[in-house]
Amino acid sequence: MSSFGSKNKEPKALLFDVFGTVVDWRSSAINELRSYGQSRGIDANWEAFADDWRGLYQPSMEAVRSGTRGFAILDDLHRESLRTLVNKYELPRPSEREEEHLVTIWHRLKPWPDVIEGLYRLKKQYIIGTLSNGNIGLMTRLAKHSGLPWDSILGAEIAGDYKPQPVVYRAAAKALNLDESECMLVAAHNDDLAAAANVGFQTAFVSRPDEYGVNQVRDKHATQSWDIVTDSFSGLADLLNCSRY
Amino acid sequence: MSSFGSKNKEPKALLFDVFGTVVDWRSSAINELRSYGQSRGIDANWEAFADDWRGLYQPSMEAVRSGTRGFAILDDLHRESLRTLVNKYELPRPSEREEEHLVTIWHRLKPWPDVIEGLYRLKKQYIIGTLSNGNIGLMTRLAKHSGLPWDSILGAEIAGDYKPQPVVYRAAAKALNLDESECMLVAAHNDDLAAAANVGFQTAFVSRPDEYGVNQVRDKHATQSWDIVTDSFSGLADLLNCSRY
Repeated sequence: MSSFGSKNKEPKALLFDVFGTVVDWRSSAINELRSYGQSRGIDANWEAFADDWRGLYQPSMEAVRSGTRGFAILDDLHRESLRTLVNKYELPRPSEREEEHLVTIWHRLKPWPDVIEGLYRLKKQYIIGTLSNGNIGLMTRLAKHSGLPWDSILGAEIAGDYKPQPVVYRAAAKALNLDESECMLVAAHNDDLAAAANVGFQTAFVSRPDEYGVNQVRDKHATQSWDIVTDSFSGLADLLNCSRY
Repeated sequence: MSSFGSKNKEPKALLFDVFGTVVDWRSSAINELRSYGQSRGIDANWEAFADDWRGLYQPSMEAVRSGTRGFAILDDLHRESLRTLVNKYELPRPSEREEEHLVTIWHRLKPWPDVIEGLYRLKKQYIIGTLSNGNIGLMTRLAKHSGLPWDSILGAEIAGDYKPQPVVYRAAAKALNLDESECMLVAAHNDDLAAAANVGFQTAFVSRPDEYGVNQVRDKHATQSWDIVTDSFSGLADLLNCSRY
């Protein structure tokens, strides 16, 4: 596959969706929830709990996107959703310290195995940054936890709104002094890429067919002819002609 | 010197002033301006030009701080000041490409010799980030140019105002989910530290007695009893008990 269509020039920045694209949120969250359950002697279906927690992600952001509430950072939305689920699952109420530990599970997610090496290769040639709905504090700690070598942490918070609102992609390009056409969104989600393409971004789909576990239905494959389609960050680096060393 | 006064707990993030504290803007700018002059066959007092360019820095930000104009990023202020000085020095008008080259001199400033090693030591123990009046695009390119390993790029742009306005320091702490007392500003400028201390930041003064060249008068020494006073990032890392490897 040619890395650049005839309409595109080489991008100057690669901006990454993070949850699902860079990190395996589901396995990480399930493992942490299980450890918490064991330490507290709580038995629960932690797989379902993790899926439900992620399930409340879009509705919680929708309240911001629709204007029903003002902007709130993702850490706060995660906390609210956690409280909802503690009630739903009839779990013992966590202490303040335990709640903090649980909310910050999202600061300690593990990257997919191809990520670190791929990012280092890409970083030599491009500005690499986040374009995530996660807040700066969350993204900073996640990067530190896993050694993600971002040049910039951008996304929802600098725009005061959530993806896929156009303003979020536009604010990221603007923050880097770039035209939208000089930015490429890298994501495992077709709807995110569609929104980025709509404002003029270049697009790279990296398939993560296990993001939602064995029963994943959505986003197993590219549903449009994105500029790049691959299945790992190494593949992305190869297609962008980044050297191996 | 004890690194933490009795009132302070250990900081969680070290946030750095950049121009003067991290990078030697003056020598870098003079060298680049001289090279530009040679390539264009323009003879000028480039030392004076660099000092004048920096001299327009505070007045240009003051228009934003006072509300005379809306927020404009530092790259734009640098461009406006450059045009003013091209007229003042009666230089040939640069082409669009040359102007871009000149404005981005501020993206290519060299760090002081102790900076890189010191930052890597500090980064192992703390979140390290910028708290600069430089915009995100500028700071990102400056970091990439010199290999500054920031965890976060914060500052004027996320606050929509310029230091020493209190909102700038507060916005940086907030973006990292930290209380102001958990942040330490590292700066070579007493007035910057005073403004940070006023909103509850811890403070570290790193003297840069050559920032303004041989005739420097201001900021050669700490003028208040900051939490830490040192003369290099290695010294800062020592005082914060960061390991050497």
